[in-house]
Amino acid sequence: MGKVSEAAQQSAQERLDNYLRTVAHLGHVEISVTDFEKSLQFYTDVMGLVLTETDGDYAYLRAWQDYDHHTLVLKASNKSELNRIGWRVSTDESLKLFEKLLTEMNIDFNWVEGGKKKALGDAIHFKSPSGIPIELYWEKELFVTDDPLLSSKLASHPSKYPARGVSPRRFDHVNVMVNDVAKEQQWWTELLGIHHRYYVQNKEDIRLGSWLSRTSISHELALMRNSNQNGAVFHHLAYYLDSPDELLRAANIMAENDIKIEWGPGKHGTSGAQFIYVFEPSGHRVEIWTSGLLIFSPDWEPIEWGPEIGELGMEMWGSTPPESYLTYGTEISE
Amino acid sequence: MGKVSEAAQQSAQERLDNYLRTVAHLGHVEISVTDFEKSLQFYTDVMGLVLTETDGDYAYLRAWQDYDHHTLVLKASNKSELNRIGWRVSTDESLKLFEKLLTEMNIDFNWVEGGKKKALGDAIHFKSPSGIPIELYWEKELFVTDDPLLSSKLASHPSKYPARGVSPRRFDHVNVMVNDVAKEQQWWTELLGIHHRYYVQNKEDIRLGSWLSRTSISHELALMRNSNQNGAVFHHLAYYLDSPDELLRAANIMAENDIKIEWGPGKHGTSGAQFIYVFEPSGHRVEIWTSGLLIFSPDWEPIEWGPEIGELGMEMWGSTPPESYLTYGTEISE
Amino acid sequence: MGKVSEAAQQSAQERLDNYLRTVAHLGHVEISVTDFEKSLQFYTDVMGLVLTETDGDYAYLRAWQDYDHHTLVLKASNKSELNRIGWRVSTDESLKLFEKLLTEMNIDFNWVEGGKKKALGDAIHFKSPSGIPIELYWEKELFVTDDPLLSSKLASHPSKYPARGVSPRRFDHVNVMVNDVAKEQQWWTELLGIHHRYYVQNKEDIRLGSWLSRTSISHELALMRNSNQNGAVFHHLAYYLDSPDELLRAANIMAENDIKIEWGPGKHGTSGAQFIYVFEPSGHRVEIWTSGLLIFSPDWEPIEWGPEIGELGMEMWGSTPPESYLTYGTEISE
Amino acid sequence: MGKVSEAAQQSAQERLDNYLRTVAHLGHVEISVTDFEKSLQFYTDVMGLVLTETDGDYAYLRAWQDYDHHTLVLKASNKSELNRIGWRVSTDESLKLFEKLLTEMNIDFNWVEGGKKKALGDAIHFKSPSGIPIELYWEKELFVTDDPLLSSKLASHPSKYPARGVSPRRFDHVNVMVNDVAKEQQWWTELLGIHHRYYVQNKEDIRLGSWLSRTSISHELALMRNSNQNGAVFHHLAYYLDSPDELLRAANIMAENDIKIEWGPGKHGTSGAQFIYVFEPSGHRVEIWTSGLLIFSPDWEPIEWGPEIGELGMEMWGSTPPESYLTYGTEISE
Repeated sequence: MGKVSEAAQQSAQERLDNYLRTVAHLGHVEISVTDFEKSLQFYTDVMGLVLTETDGDYAYLRAWQDYDHHTLVLKASNKSELNRIGWRVSTDESLKLFEKLLTEMNIDFNWVEGGKKKALGDAIHFKSPSGIPIELYWEKELFVTDDPLLSSKLASHPSKYPARGVSPRRFDHVNVMVNDVAKEQQWWTELLGIHHRYYVQNKEDIRLGSWLSRTSISHELALMRNSNQNGAVFHHLAYYLDSPDELLRAANIMAENDIKIEWGPGKHGTSGAQFIYVFEPSGHRVEIWTSGLLIFSPDWEPIEWGPEIGELGMEMWGSTPPESYLTYGTEISE
Repeated sequence: MGKVSEAAQQSAQERLDNYLRTVAHLGHVEISVTDFEKSLQFYTDVMGLVLTETDGDYAYLRAWQDYDHHTLVLKASNKSELNRIGWRVSTDESLKLFEKLLTEMNIDFNWVEGGKKKALGDAIHFKSPSGIPIELYWEKELFVTDDPLLSSKLASHPSKYPARGVSPRRFDHVNVMVNDVAKEQQWWTELLGIHHRYYVQNKEDIRLGSWLSRTSISHELALMRNSNQNGAVFHHLAYYLDSPDELLRAANIMAENDIKIEWGPGKHGTSGAQFIYVFEPSGHRVEIWTSGLLIFSPDWEPIEWGPEIGELGMEMWGSTPPESYLTYGTEISE
Repeated sequence: MGKVSEAAQQSAQERLDNYLRTVAHLGHVEISVTDFEKSLQFYTDVMGLVLTETDGDYAYLRAWQDYDHHTLVLKASNKSELNRIGWRVSTDESLKLFEKLLTEMNIDFNWVEGGKKKALGDAIHFKSPSGIPIELYWEKELFVTDDPLLSSKLASHPSKYPARGVSPRRFDHVNVMVNDVAKEQQWWTELLGIHHRYYVQNKEDIRLGSWLSRTSISHELALMRNSNQNGAVFHHLAYYLDSPDELLRAANIMAENDIKIEWGPGKHGTSGAQFIYVFEPSGHRVEIWTSGLLIFSPDWEPIEWGPEIGELGMEMWGSTPPESYLTYGTEISE
Repeated sequence: MGKVSEAAQQSAQERLDNYLRTVAHLGHVEISVTDFEKSLQFYTDVMGLVLTETDGDYAYLRAWQDYDHHTLVLKASNKSELNRIGWRVSTDESLKLFEKLLTEMNIDFNWVEGGKKKALGDAIHFKSPSGIPIELYWEKELFVTDDPLLSSKLASHPSKYPARGVSPRRFDHVNVMVNDVAKEQQWWTELLGIHHRYYVQNKEDIRLGSWLSRTSISHELALMRNSNQNGAVFHHLAYYLDSPDELLRAANIMAENDIKIEWGPGKHGTSGAQFIYVFEPSGHRVEIWTSGLLIFSPDWEPIEWGPEIGELGMEMWGSTPPESYLTYGTEISE
């Protein structure tokens, strides 16, 4: 809570701006896929996501309880890469304040007018120090439907539980591998107000991973050390399931459908969440996960997982990640 | 977000104070119990809560992943009643701001010096319009232990998963029945910044229930209409389990231990959470629940469950609450 | 084990015949449905059964791990009723021995040549004292497929886990209401060798229910007292799910698809199995259930649930069956 | 069903004897443990088994729904080894018939008078060709208790669900590694009537494993190839849990209690059962498993898992067994 501790030296306006100039939550991720058709079939039939619409080279998808128009965008391309991570800001004043701040900090950005991107209002595009492409926005259409196959009589369900494939409840988080985790984490926390929740240090006191969130979930953004030290690569996107039992059911569905499970079922000691990692047909890694801790404390101290327990932090039941998990990712769009 | 909408007319200092003067999250509930010994045995052996300590007439308990010293306080008494609902405020400046506001609003309150209450710093005590006793605080000791039977090598676990009885993960919410739900809800939202998440209206357009939270969970406070219209009564406290499977396991444990299940297993359509309600030996109702939706949107619109779907809002699998559920509660301390 | 106790008076041949002349396991149930299309849609899309084939007025269905060609037969009709319960006999000699016995006992029967009924070899048709139509057979085709959407690379899977709707693992049991449970149970045990596993007696020492199986599962046939005492009616057929969690998921699927849940989720104390009961579009009751005890003992003594615990035997979490559960059933074919 | 196919050449008496001379089900396993105290603490506190009684160097344990006096016997010793696998025979005439057969076949055996072994009637002790020690018996005391902490009001529960540690429902199976699986399997099937259910063949057409059962469960005895080819060693004993969710809960309990998980959570493609393997304090391997297929067919053909899918047979989610799994076992008593 660095911002608060400096309160004494700040004017009320400065302090207010700090409150207004944060993200509210992770909104969506846009990825390019080399095999659009097979990836789309994976995300709909195997994962059981709902296809909101396709538009030219784009497909817009969401989990059944994602309230937004989409939480995942697929773009047909000749490269499989991460295009952009979308974050909703916390108020209708936030975008202007971010614009001002980025200008002061000499960080390049683009102001993208509302309507240029499907279902989105005005947005600001820029990159983190490691090159992670960020999209901040305030307005985004909610998902609405009058399709009887999709609409639910249950008022809390923006669409019916699909009961097809994995059927996760909601979009959860994204994970990027970078060269310098500690530096990157500090930037995201300070600039965007995304709290640091827990981290792993190795014997040489190098940061192996940091996990951050603005909401009560344990993380919306994970940063992991790229052992190859060749810059930022996209590690995975994650959807959330309601139970450990459904996670094992998801593993069965993958096995029946020839989708390789890279790692898992396992359990991250850090978050307490249970997971499987799979590769979708265009090569992106997808995590399906469930359970784990929520964080409510306004002055949460990041939990350190030191070298003696770091492996339990990664997987507390005793399995070890395959080599690919520590090195492989898809590229990040220029 | 009534506060924000009035932003134009407010000074930066006023707006800042509005941000600082909110609660952060539900912290604990203190109840009196007529059968201290049996209730304590229920909460420890059957529910599987961890006993932090007993002190005279008091017992301090928590779920295994509650980070605080306690989330439940039992007080031996000749009456079973709700004594106080504890809420942590959002910053170290909040308490003073609340003191100022309550004074301006002519609401009676007591400033309770830190240390007078076990594990708590300074606190403010006052009552809601319906008479619900509130305790606001900023400082509370975390749970720490060097007992090898309790301490976990897993850094995210403030204490070991007990594997005894129900073993819920964390404290979740409290529920109070009042005469006028709409009015009471408005007060909590405006004064304490606890967002309104969803509500049920009957055919006469009377509010039957409102559910509120400050964090991402679907509710930390529920207000339900007292059909007897004889004032506020304590409906229940709730602990959270990790999975539907564990919920049915909890039902088994209740059945084997002669604890009456009043209602459930069922599923609230509103939150999507699955539940059982039981009566502990001193007569308080306890809910064990799991799953359900999280809320991330900073401008969330409360979901209305109108008369045609209100019953599904209460229970979407088709069961109906027993009469006792709509009328019985334990008393609220004077 | 009445047969064994009489061993002393029997010749080796008689004793051998007793071993050979038993059923091996429940095989299938054939029902007529008034709304063939909607019932078929229910069993495939909502229940997630696999449609092996349709043939004229008939549809043949099975759960994904049922090894046989079918476990459920739907017949389009102007009446919804139970047509026949199919049991596989224990050896290729059994049918002839049953033919001999039925003749000796003056029980009417039909010998149905193999091939007259889809996927079945020779069969014997007759009725129990209460009028339950029985089909005994030795030969039945296994399910085989070369449809890539159905076939699994996993050698133990006769077809792929469908991941659509409820997707139960296997056919489990049938339940019929009769006037005199004790008498009917004795007949099935003595004639067909289906062991008596547990039963409920009321205060007047009348048998309310008896549950029987030849295999290790707790029951393949249930007989319950018809409170109306107007003869035998078909109470329900049941499919088995792998977990309590999947059972609650099934309840969600029913709620989203406007299928009424008559009772449950609940847990039978007798078997320890967890259940929901629903009505399919043509009016038959279907149970989805999971878990429960297996029985291995060769001299199992039926467990008595007397009047003081009979309600727990029916439902051990404390709910009571709706009136319809005790009185409603579909008719039994003449 | 080799016995049946030879029916033509046999007299009625011979055929009858074949029916009478089989086992009914696996009954218990007796193991020696070097650290009696710690092993006992593991089986009771961590596994959550019920201790029926201790008697000198012996402890008798069972899962909460095991109906027998015990399913596991621990013996204090200076060696951790398998002492004996107990099988109940199918009738009160079986023991005498086995005595006769073993004599004819010149297989050494001991007739152990009832009462010499706790809770057991007369028994026959002998060894399989690979040296696996077998105990056949007809009479064994059931578990009965008047301890209010153990007895359940639910008539199907021989003791209360303990809600402590893992709390498996019942004893499931044993697994032994031998030099020649095919030969050993054939002996068990022919001599004891334990059906062959599924098996794995490698590229050289060598049998890697065979799984056998007499009851409807997928296997009560597993035989796996000892890669070291140094004779028979005890691989593991297994207890059954009710759900995949409880299996992951068991993994959590192991992690919190410093019990090494050797392999899992994983899923055997062969049986469809989900598993973890752990080492108890005296070095025996224990499997905790759940779900999977049941077998009802009286003429079941063993499922072959050939070299191209054998790995999926071992683990269908994609993990590979650790080296220790293929080589390590505890010794078998002389």
